[in-house]
Amino acid sequence: MKKIELNWKTGHSAELGTAPDRMVAARVPGNANLDWALATGMPDWKRGTGFEEYRWTENCWWLYEAQLPKCELRQGEQVFLVTEGIDYQYRIELDGKLLCEHEGMFSRQEIPLPASGGEVLRIWIAPVPKYPLGIKDTREEAAQCTKPAASYGWDWHPRLIPVGLWQDTYLEIRGASYIQDIQVDYELANDFSSADVTFTVNVHGEGDLSCIIYDAQGEAVARGQCVIRTTEDSEHKIKMTVNNPKLWWCNGYGEPNLYKYGVELAPIGTAAESYSGTIGFRTIALTMNEGAWEEPKEFPMGPSPAPITITLNGVPVFAKGSNWVNPEVFTGTITRETYEPLIKLAHQANFNILRCWGGSIINKKPFFELCDSCGILVWQEFMLSCNNYVGTKEYLRLLEQEAVAIIKKLKGHACIALWCGGNELFNNWSKMTNQSAALRLLDKLCYEHDPKRPYLMTSPLHGMAHGYYTFRYPDGREVFQVMPSAHHTAYTEFGVPSISCAETCGETADREQLFPLVKNAVTIAHHAFGAWGDAAWSYLDIINDYFGKAGSLEDLIEWSQWMQGEGYRCIFEEARRQKPYCSMAVNWCFNEPWPTLANNSLINYPATPKKSYQAVADACRSKKMSARIPKFTWRGGEQFTVDLWLLNDGCESVAAGEAAVSVELRGEVYALQTWKYGEAAANTNIEGPTLRFNLPEFDAGEGGELAALNSSGSERKKGTRHELKLKIEAGELSAEYCLLFFE
Amino acid sequence: MKKIELNWKTGHSAELGTAPDRMVAARVPGNANLDWALATGMPDWKRGTGFEEYRWTENCWWLYEAQLPKCELRQGEQVFLVTEGIDYQYRIELDGKLLCEHEGMFSRQEIPLPASGGEVLRIWIAPVPKYPLGIKDTREEAAQCTKPAASYGWDWHPRLIPVGLWQDTYLEIRGASYIQDIQVDYELANDFSSADVTFTVNVHGEGDLSCIIYDAQGEAVARGQCVIRTTEDSEHKIKMTVNNPKLWWCNGYGEPNLYKYGVELAPIGTAAESYSGTIGFRTIALTMNEGAWEEPKEFPMGPSPAPITITLNGVPVFAKGSNWVNPEVFTGTITRETYEPLIKLAHQANFNILRCWGGSIINKKPFFELCDSCGILVWQEFMLSCNNYVGTKEYLRLLEQEAVAIIKKLKGHACIALWCGGNELFNNWSKMTNQSAALRLLDKLCYEHDPKRPYLMTSPLHGMAHGYYTFRYPDGREVFQVMPSAHHTAYTEFGVPSISCAETCGETADREQLFPLVKNAVTIAHHAFGAWGDAAWSYLDIINDYFGKAGSLEDLIEWSQWMQGEGYRCIFEEARRQKPYCSMAVNWCFNEPWPTLANNSLINYPATPKKSYQAVADACRSKKMSARIPKFTWRGGEQFTVDLWLLNDGCESVAAGEAAVSVELRGEVYALQTWKYGEAAANTNIEGPTLRFNLPEFDAGEGGELAALNSSGSERKKGTRHELKLKIEAGELSAEYCLLFFE
Repeated sequence: MKKIELNWKTGHSAELGTAPDRMVAARVPGNANLDWALATGMPDWKRGTGFEEYRWTENCWWLYEAQLPKCELRQGEQVFLVTEGIDYQYRIELDGKLLCEHEGMFSRQEIPLPASGGEVLRIWIAPVPKYPLGIKDTREEAAQCTKPAASYGWDWHPRLIPVGLWQDTYLEIRGASYIQDIQVDYELANDFSSADVTFTVNVHGEGDLSCIIYDAQGEAVARGQCVIRTTEDSEHKIKMTVNNPKLWWCNGYGEPNLYKYGVELAPIGTAAESYSGTIGFRTIALTMNEGAWEEPKEFPMGPSPAPITITLNGVPVFAKGSNWVNPEVFTGTITRETYEPLIKLAHQANFNILRCWGGSIINKKPFFELCDSCGILVWQEFMLSCNNYVGTKEYLRLLEQEAVAIIKKLKGHACIALWCGGNELFNNWSKMTNQSAALRLLDKLCYEHDPKRPYLMTSPLHGMAHGYYTFRYPDGREVFQVMPSAHHTAYTEFGVPSISCAETCGETADREQLFPLVKNAVTIAHHAFGAWGDAAWSYLDIINDYFGKAGSLEDLIEWSQWMQGEGYRCIFEEARRQKPYCSMAVNWCFNEPWPTLANNSLINYPATPKKSYQAVADACRSKKMSARIPKFTWRGGEQFTVDLWLLNDGCESVAAGEAAVSVELRGEVYALQTWKYGEAAANTNIEGPTLRFNLPEFDAGEGGELAALNSSGSERKKGTRHELKLKIEAGELSAEYCLLFFE
Repeated sequence: MKKIELNWKTGHSAELGTAPDRMVAARVPGNANLDWALATGMPDWKRGTGFEEYRWTENCWWLYEAQLPKCELRQGEQVFLVTEGIDYQYRIELDGKLLCEHEGMFSRQEIPLPASGGEVLRIWIAPVPKYPLGIKDTREEAAQCTKPAASYGWDWHPRLIPVGLWQDTYLEIRGASYIQDIQVDYELANDFSSADVTFTVNVHGEGDLSCIIYDAQGEAVARGQCVIRTTEDSEHKIKMTVNNPKLWWCNGYGEPNLYKYGVELAPIGTAAESYSGTIGFRTIALTMNEGAWEEPKEFPMGPSPAPITITLNGVPVFAKGSNWVNPEVFTGTITRETYEPLIKLAHQANFNILRCWGGSIINKKPFFELCDSCGILVWQEFMLSCNNYVGTKEYLRLLEQEAVAIIKKLKGHACIALWCGGNELFNNWSKMTNQSAALRLLDKLCYEHDPKRPYLMTSPLHGMAHGYYTFRYPDGREVFQVMPSAHHTAYTEFGVPSISCAETCGETADREQLFPLVKNAVTIAHHAFGAWGDAAWSYLDIINDYFGKAGSLEDLIEWSQWMQGEGYRCIFEEARRQKPYCSMAVNWCFNEPWPTLANNSLINYPATPKKSYQAVADACRSKKMSARIPKFTWRGGEQFTVDLWLLNDGCESVAAGEAAVSVELRGEVYALQTWKYGEAAANTNIEGPTLRFNLPEFDAGEGGELAALNSSGSERKKGTRHELKLKIEAGELSAEYCLLFFE
């Protein structure tokens, strides 16, 4: 099989069939509107309000054009046009003759072509779909299509809708015999002592077919083969057993062991074609959270909460991670290199899960390969988010086509923990229900094509929760007060925003435009204001309340990322303290598709970790000391209280030991107490003592730099601000918290 | 097509293939263990502990035997054995040759037979399935089969497991051409102005096929036909339109209009065969309960409750009804005549729904025909209840086979409102979840075969509730206090027990054995004691607390049915007052399969309404006055308070008017107040005023006959008991409540 890249040009036109006035070079995979912008000198979409100049690109027809080369074919060979995905609705013509009409960017196409050369291949991409429901220029326009809703505008995504040949699209010369499809399934023995593997291989033509599984050292551990002597299409199930397979584990629970497989078809007289992939042997299930069967307690009695504990190889996992969004606005430009640093950061943050949120794209293959090899579980949603995707016949047909393509393409990845219909569909901003045909259809398709993998209609389900997205709630409570009183099986979204890193801010506008940080077209566009209510995501009022007036953008960045870090640390650790009733903490969000000025993300575009990223990475260590702290801001003379915990996720116990607790304030270290803790069993926390300490009183400093709120959000007190560091020293388990203190 | 009944005999044997020592006449449809009992003089299963003598009948092989008659066949004719269902696992042999092996009592079988005559047909029924899980002789034994769990023993059903040819089983002579299957589907126009009907007819052989739809007057309103000229099997879709169809409505919302259809196949040269059925045109959906989208209100935020408002032809229905159980222990004996008086009673109780609970059988055809014609919606559960039906391959295969048979057989019935996986599966006594393969499979099958009908995995779902099952909760609160503070979208089970009618009690034992009513083998067997905790279902302690020592069984019956009536009245009316947030009230239970001594049922076996039935029928009138009353028992000098409501279900408004409220006590009538109410819009309640009245004090009577509890369940006060009647007089809307008063 030989792959031939084409030289693509692109241009736009008001109507289908009308030749564009100009054609420019097109990158494939890529996005036509970005190619056009680069070639014609349109404003930088990342800077200021430059992206608004791209609005017209939603509404025209985009044409991709390439001339076919002459292909010298041997006996039985055939040329195919192959595309892994075109965004979004398109028709393919050859010399003006229609070859295919298609809607949907996630389904692969293979179209036989002539080999004579010189013909012109044209792909016409229609204006982006806009369902005329509700208000114009909102996500609701995506409510009857399978295009990700985020690009229609979100509180962290500009309204900027990519189109084009966003995935590999090329010519392929195939011999008389070739492999059409490979599906690998396996059944693990109950005691994990062996795996019965079945390769289902669809072959066109004849040849000797062999399948081999290799271990990490490259040793073949199982093989099977068959001789195919038909010139028709045929399907072959080749079975083999891998004994004592090394299981695939997620980060923090073991190694993400992968086996490599090779499938080779050797036709008579021509070179063999070979394909490879990986297998990670594991079982996965959603099981009931401990204690959830005991709820509710009273009659009249409802059902128990939905199960949301990911049980991997029989071990209940505490899932720690983040919500993943498309890492580029122009999703066509995403490559393995886009994903690599981000997945590495997720791994280094001690995450074991990413929730691929339904408003974004279904990621390209390298994303899943990287998650496979890094032990990052993937919560994979279909492309429904915050809309009512009404089950019209046309929508259901489209959804089925795309969903089946997605399931078949991805089901072989060990990393995928579960399928989910989409985001927040059972809440009143979406108004879908368990009766929605789209969600019943998706359940059916997952059950048919991938029955061993869990399926959820949406997140949150009964028992789980999303939000809120500030350090301090509108009622004045901080996350320090809210989270210990929350009682949920999983926190699958929660956010604490911050202002972006200086470097990222500088991508959005000149520095002098950004301080003082005020509401204007640019700062609104980059989500510092008006993203979710007027104050989001910069929340200058909250920063000002805690820290006083900022003297520079750097002050704002430092303070807000400090709050973000301690806020996230609080929530992740509180969720972990609530284990085993709670089994998941996934913040909103991990990354971002363009440079924001403020966002709940941990990583600025494209892959710059915020200061708060470190706090989260620390909070997610498998084994660590943890403190439940009642509030962020303290004053002299108050009694400081802290509940100690030893958190232990993963498959190993923690030996007994001692933890020395101290408070550091104005350069002084005050020893509180030493906690002698016993051994923590694998996957089990220990609740420790509550420590109390009377904070020293100091003379009120001169010119205390702000009026600080106390944590109830009402009383103000003058005083000088200091860091209050709580340190729990216990070797590798040590933990540190950085709070505020006012004299 | 000619039907030939066979002369069946039955007998039992320890082993498959070993001829029984004795064969007795068998009723078909019927049950072998009952036939045997009648022929051999076994004790009456309804009386005393007679049913215990039947235990051995679970464990043997039952043989049905019949000799085939000689059939004179014309050219092309063929004899078939047809069975609508055999209970439960069986093999069919002809002269010792195996024709078929099968598990599952709900799937039809058709087997070609020779016509020569004299052959012996044998049907061997295996011992009943018992999955060896947990404790012996419990419902858990049904956890891997599709046989209803109730017969394995329940708190209202003896352990008595029927087997046999429980549905029609006969020979059929078919011509060379015949109809194999008819499915009728329709699509109603959005404005209900027309219905596009499609008959899908599977035909064997050739002939002229015609389909006609008739209105209630017998006028043909639509027709279509085709000429089939093939001798093979063929499928035909015949489409037609019914203009201005009269819609099917449930009881209280309109007429249950039905159209009749006839399908005729006229082969050349032989007589035409015709089939008929009915169509009720309606749309049905589960929609969100009003107010439920506004819940929850706080972050971290879970999902809104599940939708449970049955919306019929666009009108939200308040579903009032009861849980239906198998009306006979020996389900093979159920006929149309069994169902008729019961469905008539449901209709007269102003019910519009019956929940066919998952622990019982799927009813026979006449049940659905009667519900169609009486406007009774059916909540139809599959045969899963209170067990964890683990999704093994074998169980899923069996479940799929039976579920598909059930869906195809029943989907044409207008009455069926929804499919449901089964009973209380998401609670800790079942431990199934939304991930259970059985429930995902059922969703898939319903979606594939009957996509327009709602599907629920179980009851209750999030927002809904089951229980409790007493007049007074263990914490001392009465339903009068519990229900106004409950907040659920649907009450799909709630019970208030009573002692059975005297006639029914007399079926269980001689009268002298039943008073005083004490715990013994017979009273336990008939559920007076130890059914659900020691006191259930007679709850003599509660009766005694309210009414004092009973002088006779008649006292007990009267008092407990009084409490049951007022308790049920309270719950049904409170659920209605909570409309539209609440949209369903379905008590546990309607009927019973044998004579109980005490039960939550409204109807004693076989069809004897209790006194409480009248109270429920009254509470379920579409339009009525209603009073929220804070407690059951009152004393002189107390302030009696009552919240007035006008309840209005259905499609008609209620004109403005006046309601005169009075209290009747010791023969005196005390007028409270007149409420001038405005017009109540269709389907809308009106909340009226709260009335207060100081109850007169009387001299404490001599020899007050009991120590009465006050409603808090703690304080006792001597005094003479009287009826306290609250009357709301408003013509057809009038209402009356009968409470207790102690001097």
